[in-house]
Amino acid sequence: MARFLKKKEASLGLPPGAAVFIGEQKVSETRIKSMRYSPTELEESEVDLTAPASTTPPEEGVEWTDITGLHDPERVKSICTRFNLHPLTIEDILHTGQRPKMEEFDHYLYFVLKMLHYDQENKVIRSEQLSIILGDSFVLTFQEQPGDTFAPVRERIRKKRGRIRNSGSDYLAYALLDTVVDNYIASIERLGEEIEDLENEIITDPEREVLEKINLYKREINYLRKTSRPAREFILQLSRLDNDLVRDSSRPFVKDLLDLSTQSVEIIETYRDVLSDYLDIYNTGVNNRLNDIMRVLTIFSAIFIPLTFIAGIYGTNFEYLPELHYRYSYFIFWGVLLVIAAIMLRFFRKRNWL
Amino acid sequence: MARFLKKKEASLGLPPGAAVFIGEQKVSETRIKSMRYSPTELEESEVDLTAPASTTPPEEGVEWTDITGLHDPERVKSICTRFNLHPLTIEDILHTGQRPKMEEFDHYLYFVLKMLHYDQENKVIRSEQLSIILGDSFVLTFQEQPGDTFAPVRERIRKKRGRIRNSGSDYLAYALLDTVVDNYIASIERLGEEIEDLENEIITDPEREVLEKINLYKREINYLRKTSRPAREFILQLSRLDNDLVRDSSRPFVKDLLDLSTQSVEIIETYRDVLSDYLDIYNTGVNNRLNDIMRVLTIFSAIFIPLTFIAGIYGTNFEYLPELHYRYSYFIFWGVLLVIAAIMLRFFRKRNWL
Amino acid sequence: MARFLKKKEASLGLPPGAAVFIGEQKVSETRIKSMRYSPTELEESEVDLTAPASTTPPEEGVEWTDITGLHDPERVKSICTRFNLHPLTIEDILHTGQRPKMEEFDHYLYFVLKMLHYDQENKVIRSEQLSIILGDSFVLTFQEQPGDTFAPVRERIRKKRGRIRNSGSDYLAYALLDTVVDNYIASIERLGEEIEDLENEIITDPEREVLEKINLYKREINYLRKTSRPAREFILQLSRLDNDLVRDSSRPFVKDLLDLSTQSVEIIETYRDVLSDYLDIYNTGVNNRLNDIMRVLTIFSAIFIPLTFIAGIYGTNFEYLPELHYRYSYFIFWGVLLVIAAIMLRFFRKRNWL
Amino acid sequence: MARFLKKKEASLGLPPGAAVFIGEQKVSETRIKSMRYSPTELEESEVDLTAPASTTPPEEGVEWTDITGLHDPERVKSICTRFNLHPLTIEDILHTGQRPKMEEFDHYLYFVLKMLHYDQENKVIRSEQLSIILGDSFVLTFQEQPGDTFAPVRERIRKKRGRIRNSGSDYLAYALLDTVVDNYIASIERLGEEIEDLENEIITDPEREVLEKINLYKREINYLRKTSRPAREFILQLSRLDNDLVRDSSRPFVKDLLDLSTQSVEIIETYRDVLSDYLDIYNTGVNNRLNDIMRVLTIFSAIFIPLTFIAGIYGTNFEYLPELHYRYSYFIFWGVLLVIAAIMLRFFRKRNWL
Amino acid sequence: MARFLKKKEASLGLPPGAAVFIGEQKVSETRIKSMRYSPTELEESEVDLTAPASTTPPEEGVEWTDITGLHDPERVKSICTRFNLHPLTIEDILHTGQRPKMEEFDHYLYFVLKMLHYDQENKVIRSEQLSIILGDSFVLTFQEQPGDTFAPVRERIRKKRGRIRNSGSDYLAYALLDTVVDNYIASIERLGEEIEDLENEIITDPEREVLEKINLYKREINYLRKTSRPAREFILQLSRLDNDLVRDSSRPFVKDLLDLSTQSVEIIETYRDVLSDYLDIYNTGVNNRLNDIMRVLTIFSAIFIPLTFIAGIYGTNFEYLPELHYRYSYFIFWGVLLVIAAIMLRFFRKRNWL
Repeated sequence: MARFLKKKEASLGLPPGAAVFIGEQKVSETRIKSMRYSPTELEESEVDLTAPASTTPPEEGVEWTDITGLHDPERVKSICTRFNLHPLTIEDILHTGQRPKMEEFDHYLYFVLKMLHYDQENKVIRSEQLSIILGDSFVLTFQEQPGDTFAPVRERIRKKRGRIRNSGSDYLAYALLDTVVDNYIASIERLGEEIEDLENEIITDPEREVLEKINLYKREINYLRKTSRPAREFILQLSRLDNDLVRDSSRPFVKDLLDLSTQSVEIIETYRDVLSDYLDIYNTGVNNRLNDIMRVLTIFSAIFIPLTFIAGIYGTNFEYLPELHYRYSYFIFWGVLLVIAAIMLRFFRKRNWL
Repeated sequence: MARFLKKKEASLGLPPGAAVFIGEQKVSETRIKSMRYSPTELEESEVDLTAPASTTPPEEGVEWTDITGLHDPERVKSICTRFNLHPLTIEDILHTGQRPKMEEFDHYLYFVLKMLHYDQENKVIRSEQLSIILGDSFVLTFQEQPGDTFAPVRERIRKKRGRIRNSGSDYLAYALLDTVVDNYIASIERLGEEIEDLENEIITDPEREVLEKINLYKREINYLRKTSRPAREFILQLSRLDNDLVRDSSRPFVKDLLDLSTQSVEIIETYRDVLSDYLDIYNTGVNNRLNDIMRVLTIFSAIFIPLTFIAGIYGTNFEYLPELHYRYSYFIFWGVLLVIAAIMLRFFRKRNWL
Repeated sequence: MARFLKKKEASLGLPPGAAVFIGEQKVSETRIKSMRYSPTELEESEVDLTAPASTTPPEEGVEWTDITGLHDPERVKSICTRFNLHPLTIEDILHTGQRPKMEEFDHYLYFVLKMLHYDQENKVIRSEQLSIILGDSFVLTFQEQPGDTFAPVRERIRKKRGRIRNSGSDYLAYALLDTVVDNYIASIERLGEEIEDLENEIITDPEREVLEKINLYKREINYLRKTSRPAREFILQLSRLDNDLVRDSSRPFVKDLLDLSTQSVEIIETYRDVLSDYLDIYNTGVNNRLNDIMRVLTIFSAIFIPLTFIAGIYGTNFEYLPELHYRYSYFIFWGVLLVIAAIMLRFFRKRNWL
Repeated sequence: MARFLKKKEASLGLPPGAAVFIGEQKVSETRIKSMRYSPTELEESEVDLTAPASTTPPEEGVEWTDITGLHDPERVKSICTRFNLHPLTIEDILHTGQRPKMEEFDHYLYFVLKMLHYDQENKVIRSEQLSIILGDSFVLTFQEQPGDTFAPVRERIRKKRGRIRNSGSDYLAYALLDTVVDNYIASIERLGEEIEDLENEIITDPEREVLEKINLYKREINYLRKTSRPAREFILQLSRLDNDLVRDSSRPFVKDLLDLSTQSVEIIETYRDVLSDYLDIYNTGVNNRLNDIMRVLTIFSAIFIPLTFIAGIYGTNFEYLPELHYRYSYFIFWGVLLVIAAIMLRFFRKRNWL
Repeated sequence: MARFLKKKEASLGLPPGAAVFIGEQKVSETRIKSMRYSPTELEESEVDLTAPASTTPPEEGVEWTDITGLHDPERVKSICTRFNLHPLTIEDILHTGQRPKMEEFDHYLYFVLKMLHYDQENKVIRSEQLSIILGDSFVLTFQEQPGDTFAPVRERIRKKRGRIRNSGSDYLAYALLDTVVDNYIASIERLGEEIEDLENEIITDPEREVLEKINLYKREINYLRKTSRPAREFILQLSRLDNDLVRDSSRPFVKDLLDLSTQSVEIIETYRDVLSDYLDIYNTGVNNRLNDIMRVLTIFSAIFIPLTFIAGIYGTNFEYLPELHYRYSYFIFWGVLLVIAAIMLRFFRKRNWL
């Protein structure tokens, strides 16, 4: 299947804003985790999926609702409607092939990006779409499958670590984005280590599997690049955004996030260059090896072919072949062979082929 | 014929705005389909081509006139004149080699772009020029040949799906553009799948037809790129346009369209890079194969050439050649041959050639 | 001679604005054709070169003076002086190695660009410098040699085709620029067809002349690129120019011209990429061919070298060589040879070399 | 270990602003050197690490505190707290994998960049993170390990050389940055000399170690590039900064610094190109060499293989082989061999292979 | 020595603005030539180096002081001090490794750039730093060594050619810059002719010295590029400069200069591309040649190796080898050999190898 593009055909001809799930179903059940916190209070609940979602956003403090599993459009739609989201947002949440972006709506900001995870076993970057809705007093997150990416953020809320409990929804959104970008960097780092480990193999032993690895890493780096560049783009946009939803006190954190994402993009570019260099060097190594092989062949051929020819001469059965009858012919013959071999060897040594 | 450029010579020396058809005639007949709709009413008609086109744009609601077949300049010109289009617009509609662009005129916007269709059989992208005229209460579309690209939009109008019946002409134009860009993505997707399928073949079996395929896809990707980049450009322009013809309520949809077209452009770039990488890897594969071949040749030559030489020595007819007469000469001779062969084999094993 | 640069040395040390002709004399005589027209009147004359140029620009209507042949600086200077041109403009008209550009002066705009003509015989782009002076009621054009490039424009003036007779000098200048850019596109088209024709040859039969052609086209494309990019640049500048000399009614035409020149630049880039791809594929083809050659060599060598060795063994003259004396030795010998050959063939078939 | 990225995983899940040291501990002890100076006074002290840091920034003059060794977060934090630094700044100081950047805070500017040192022995660029805090009357510098990079600045303060004693904290910060960028240039210079020295080796003797060197230098140049480009970026930002902390009298110096850093970036790009050219030329050299080898092989084979064949003919034991019995057969045989050899040699000479 | 970078280490640790000469001493003596002119008057003098420089800038007219030889910092400093130059300017004049740039100071503009001279003998671009100080009524120029670059300007002043005597100091500075850029173009032109001359050699006869030449020209083009791009940059800056020192009447000349320098940069880029193409084509040529060589080898081997084998068969000494005893065996043997050779030749002809 085309990796760089999610199936789009299913949606051909649909009106924009149609709430249809497009993607691969990755979990069997939609799960909702909810956290309400203020500097002093904290309330956690796992919302019952059968009961109607009747709760409204809190008047003070922050409510974070984390939805896992998007295959049930009706369910997702009902949650979205409660928070009064635009149909285009709902569509984007459900179509899991979105390009990372930020969109500004009247009462909320919508972020969609990829969460990455480097599967070291299969040497492949796994990705999953994450939608974050930042409202004045609430944050919604939509993930395709469960995972512990946001566990540290939850822990910080529970343990009152850092400033998270004392800050608004924008800080929570920042903390979530920060976690995602941190994961980018961690994925790049793991991949990068493997890439740098290739270096020795390439020069000393340019075997075919090295080529396959280079190709593999190239593909993953391309994938990372395609994912992280638009992410950086919208974080840049976010850092310049003039919107009340992002409070002034959060600005330095957004700038920090921008630095981090810029760094991730730059390192990806660096590894891209490194892999291109590797391929060049691999090729040169292959050529060098061919040279070695040909040198051996040429030396053997050029020494023995003339000798064999001379032996052939004296293997002819001409009736009148005077040299055959002299007493020391055979020894002179050997002498000539050795002299020719010596000349050839000197010739090759002078050419630096030995 | 030059694929990247439509015949222009025919128009050399013509005054600008001359209503002359330049292109390939693709249908035998010009057909006109017309739809008039408002939130409550819908009227569809297939205009009689022999009768004079006397109807005027509606006072309320939206009129969409879809013209298929451009080879009859007089007919096209008379339609255009009814809607009071600028001569340059008429020229652009008729010359089917236009670069995708948007142009702002007093009472309408003019979009020209390519509709793409990936012909999987022949592995070639087919394209057709589409002109869209967006007026206050009307939309005109000019296609080169009939097709069902816009059928879903018609269906949405008929079935009142989504917001199309309740929105103005700008939303209709958006819906049409959206359909076209969706088709881009679908074409890229189909091509992309084939490209990604190549990957295995390249590494395991770098045959000549793989090279031909790479070349083929490169050409199609170049073509896609040439077509979709200016499309993205004018959608960007459109998203920034300050013109009453584009209502505020349509803005989020235009932004969505921009995202989609940006994504299409990025994926095309990604596939371009992927194909370049493929060619590099193919080349390296070819070199590796040459190495294999040469290694076999060298091993055979380097082992047997010296042996043949030694056999040649004892095939000489020297009268006095002492070794020939010893009893065990022949067996010693074999022994020497085997020792030499063993030494050579070890030498190659040490060099990792076996 | 350096093609990408006209001889500049001749002007080293000259004060700027010096009226010295720098270039190759291409015609023997300077010729002047003059047209004065208004919506109702038209007057054509071929000015006598010996008489003093005493006429002044017309009070109404447009005067177009077309000068062919620049080798006589005094003559050119006297014409320029009549129209009160800046010394730098005169210098630029006479130095035929100018970079295409537009310059704004108090009472006129100065355009300098290249007229291109693809000489299909010699597969080379010929170019000639064209200077256009756009004044309020006059247009001056300076060409290096006579040609029929502007004949269609003259014809339109004479036949009152299009809007040319009813428009001002700016429309005439636009019409001339349009003709030049149309010629670019036509040149690119002719070259492009030849380039695309190469494609088949490259894959099926990568002969040396294909390489020479690729090289040739690369050079011409480079030349086209160098010429057409600055042309596009100044048309862009022109489209944004805020100057009374360009009337509002001409704006859409200038935008159209900009589209055309953008398209020409893009197609040139596309062909550049295509040629690079061709070279890559040609190289790969050459490598593939080398592989084929080596495979044949290796198969022959690897089969016959061992066989020859075995024959050599039994050609030795050892006194005691038991196999020679058995009755069926010769047939067993043949059997062994055939078995070895069969083994080798299987080995090569397994490696997919046959 | 991934060189282009410092271990980030350790910080995954930490709240932003957490004061945790991330990096490699390079010294055993944190050392603090302090200098207070005004045009007339100078006071130097090595602060006792066990005593509480009770001193406050001076009311007049400049205080420069230089901290070496970052592995003790508590210590660093207490210093930072004294100067009232933002938690994010403290985090950035302690995490030694920062991208070079400038950050503006209420009462200070924060610069983080890399100090580079080219270790000529191991042909590797060593780097160390440097944080500079520029306050109104104080400058803080945080280094990972001790070194004499800043010794000349200290000396200038002590000896009252240049304008440093008469200028404010901004000039000191400039002087420190200038020293760092000077060190960049010096590192590039040393590396550059080695790179340019490679040139001769590449053409005359393309041995394998040349390839390894090219690869090595490529990696170091990539590293330099990754480090110096963001440095240039923030110096550009600094040169445009509108902030009272940078006095007008310092502006020309910042511009000078910008020139220097731009130059460093450009030279790195130049060397990158040079190394790519080297690799191309090395490859071509390897190919040329292969050609030489093959030419020798081909000449030997093509001359002796036919000769050996002819000798083989007359080595056959056919009973009736007339030539064997003529008296001059052997001499005619030699004559034929020599004629064939001569023909082959002429053929090769005509092909320019000899 | 590193060519792309002048020794910087000598200045490590020096305070900025330190008047120390960094570079290679190129002349033995500092020489000063002075010209004072107004429309009516002209005074030339060669200032005595032992006398104190007591003259002050003139009240009307222009004074141009041309200093040759920079190795005596005290002398240079005293001149600079007389004109009240900023210490950083003095430093830049003395450090001969400056990046071309323009700097604006209170009462003067400072330009530093390279004068280039193509040494056709050694095929190397020689460069020399030129500093130009443009004050209200004076111009200072600092060159590293004497030369006749500015002789034409002096001549124009003396002979009152062009507008130089009637214009201010800004026109003089323009005239000097124009001379320098003209020299760039001339250098590029000379180099360019040699580069274009290479083209034939590459295709017809890809010898090793062609590779060396390509490499050589690449290096020089890189050097030209590094020098002329920042020059263009600051001329662009100059053309946009809003400063009384540049009078309005000089603006068109500066624009002209900008065109010239843009052209020089573009041509350099074109030649860079041309050289890259050359290398590609050279490589392809080398590969083609290898193919030719291998084809010859393969044809010879594939024809004669089987024949030799057959001859070997009948050279064996088997006692019972029936063919040896038939009367026409030898002739049948020859017949078989010829048939095999004919088959092989046909095989190769069919493969297009002959």
